[in-house]
Amino acid sequence: MDITHYPQINPPQRLLMGPGPINADPRVLRAMSSQLLGQYDPAMTHYMNEVMELYRAVFRTENRWTMLIDGTSRAGIEAILLSAIRPGDKVLVPVFGRFGHLLCEIARRCRAEVHTIEVPWGEVFTPDQIEDAIKKVRPRLLLTVQGDTSTTMLQPLAELGAICRRYDVLFYTDATASFGGNPLETDAWGLDAVSAGMQKCLGGPSGTSPITLSPQMEAVIRKRKCVEEGIRTAAHQDGDDEMIYSNYFDLGMIMDYWGPERLNHHTEATSALFGARECARLILQEGLDNGIARHQLHGAAMLAGIQGMGLETFGDLQHKMNNVLGVVIPQGVNGDLARKLMLEDFGIEIGTSFGPLIGKVWRIGTMGYNARKDCVLQTLAALEAVLNHLGFKTTQGAAMQAAWDLYSNGSR
Amino acid sequence: MDITHYPQINPPQRLLMGPGPINADPRVLRAMSSQLLGQYDPAMTHYMNEVMELYRAVFRTENRWTMLIDGTSRAGIEAILLSAIRPGDKVLVPVFGRFGHLLCEIARRCRAEVHTIEVPWGEVFTPDQIEDAIKKVRPRLLLTVQGDTSTTMLQPLAELGAICRRYDVLFYTDATASFGGNPLETDAWGLDAVSAGMQKCLGGPSGTSPITLSPQMEAVIRKRKCVEEGIRTAAHQDGDDEMIYSNYFDLGMIMDYWGPERLNHHTEATSALFGARECARLILQEGLDNGIARHQLHGAAMLAGIQGMGLETFGDLQHKMNNVLGVVIPQGVNGDLARKLMLEDFGIEIGTSFGPLIGKVWRIGTMGYNARKDCVLQTLAALEAVLNHLGFKTTQGAAMQAAWDLYSNGSR
Repeated sequence: MDITHYPQINPPQRLLMGPGPINADPRVLRAMSSQLLGQYDPAMTHYMNEVMELYRAVFRTENRWTMLIDGTSRAGIEAILLSAIRPGDKVLVPVFGRFGHLLCEIARRCRAEVHTIEVPWGEVFTPDQIEDAIKKVRPRLLLTVQGDTSTTMLQPLAELGAICRRYDVLFYTDATASFGGNPLETDAWGLDAVSAGMQKCLGGPSGTSPITLSPQMEAVIRKRKCVEEGIRTAAHQDGDDEMIYSNYFDLGMIMDYWGPERLNHHTEATSALFGARECARLILQEGLDNGIARHQLHGAAMLAGIQGMGLETFGDLQHKMNNVLGVVIPQGVNGDLARKLMLEDFGIEIGTSFGPLIGKVWRIGTMGYNARKDCVLQTLAALEAVLNHLGFKTTQGAAMQAAWDLYSNGSR
Repeated sequence: MDITHYPQINPPQRLLMGPGPINADPRVLRAMSSQLLGQYDPAMTHYMNEVMELYRAVFRTENRWTMLIDGTSRAGIEAILLSAIRPGDKVLVPVFGRFGHLLCEIARRCRAEVHTIEVPWGEVFTPDQIEDAIKKVRPRLLLTVQGDTSTTMLQPLAELGAICRRYDVLFYTDATASFGGNPLETDAWGLDAVSAGMQKCLGGPSGTSPITLSPQMEAVIRKRKCVEEGIRTAAHQDGDDEMIYSNYFDLGMIMDYWGPERLNHHTEATSALFGARECARLILQEGLDNGIARHQLHGAAMLAGIQGMGLETFGDLQHKMNNVLGVVIPQGVNGDLARKLMLEDFGIEIGTSFGPLIGKVWRIGTMGYNARKDCVLQTLAALEAVLNHLGFKTTQGAAMQAAWDLYSNGSR
């Protein structure tokens, strides 16, 4: 191997306007370039405690167990599902896109009895639909996706916690794609567990997953306690419920690592933790509600521009996520070629789709660091140029004016 | 919450001379601060392919499936064990320290039938001992630790592959703590799977785990294939062996993500990948053998200095890892107080121990970016000062001279 063929990392400049990952906030990358600390250095455990405090504010919760799972957002999902679901447990998954299927898939790996209800892609569920299914299935857990980027839809969750309480159901949501850009009220909505990811509205790189667990969820997990043999002492006692079939994702162990006992588990991914701390800090500096309003504004401007270009959008706009928009690829336009021209000639990435929407819908994001006016206007101008180049006619100036108008009015 | 109480990340300067994590090479942190790319951007998939090529060279293997698991080194271990072990499979674990217990623990979570052999902490196994146990147990897998930092011992592996072939046993080693600082020959030694971590001899931050899988191991995993429902098409077919009880750690899916199909799984932790690429690149620039020799040299200098100080060492020095040394805490010295003074007054971290060695042994590392003369001499000078301060008498100048002599002779 000739190592001179491998120069230093030098990625091309891209404006990432797909469904995520998006460009990381440069301040987050700078925080991540800080030198490391030992795992039990007081400076390190102080940062871990601060991360818990900061994410409590972002999750809007008093939950003690608000921490990071070292892995991508999918690791956060799996840690919660593996720790909460015992083999044979019934779970209910309302599926309205690809990431509902993912919850089913992970739950099956946990050997759950998986029940689903479905709506067509582009729609969401009413609370009544979910309550009816709970009454029929009587699941131990309700597993929901808040924002499913595959359809760009945002499932309303506010009323589901009360329903879950009535039927003694644990309530989880995967907020990977929505967190920080759309309202989420962990405590007020009665959520027992939430997981998120960095690479969407939080403006960081994928690699660690913030989660929060209610006291009820903690109790469920503690019953499955299992202390690692190599570090077990006489004071440690196992729980009386079936063990968790993973060590890495055993949330009981991860609590004991983040808690005062600091019982050794993995070696915390310090750079990712520094990045996650900076993401939360920047969000709270801006104000969480201000940040959500920013996502709403730039998402609305993108929508106005796309409509001004004469393009159709996908799905129920009343339930669209703030941070991603489905755009129907116009007839006669090769969607992949358009994306290729966007990327190669303008350095702008927009997204393709999954499953039934492949070749039919582009997904355009406005999130995190890229929920900004310049990103929206650059993307609209480039897309219009590419579409015109590919033979799709637009009214000159209309798309940009629609976006400008939206910004002048300051609201949808 | 008053966000002004959370200033930007500003960790105190530490020289990390424990068993890891150690200071990251600044070039690795710089690589990690690069801006992100989309998952399917040709520039990103090119970097993924390069990472595979670079780690093949570091693992000394032709294995196609040489890639990263997004998580800490423990994630790499668990991905391999969960993907390889079917419930009820017999595994044999030679335990010579804490991380052997960890392999047992993870294998139990995979519902393996776990068999162990043990030697006292500070020793390793002969090939005969392992062959005898294989003959008796007839396991499907042999799970070994190459370097167990809990005892500082390095298990010889060179002869085990041939034994495993004779009895049709799959051969895995956890090289987290040894990789890059001690010889490891994946192909020549007949290893079927190896996992590693970044935060030891590779000189990066914890957060991603390089692994390599032999064609035999690939075949075992492919038999358990299970395509995710949300992205499954008619062309996809499941395997005929029992499914893997994890989605995140399903190595078949992870192969399909790193392979030409690029089937969506997790969102690759791009910053961690940039860091891992830089670690491998720096190692191969230096030359892998040169880097191992550097670890040998500075480890020997640390040993000479410690012995020159009149301190006892722990374990069989013939089988010591190059990169970590167990030092017996001298009688009358409070080990935790000494470490506290090292950290607070000199900014130098040395390690405590696990299990039977707590309060009896310190662990001092010389690895990765910190396998350097200045790090060794600073640590020895500080430790001698602290010990003198705490009433332990040394011969003035002897420790430092012993280290200098070692460097002058250039060998052990």
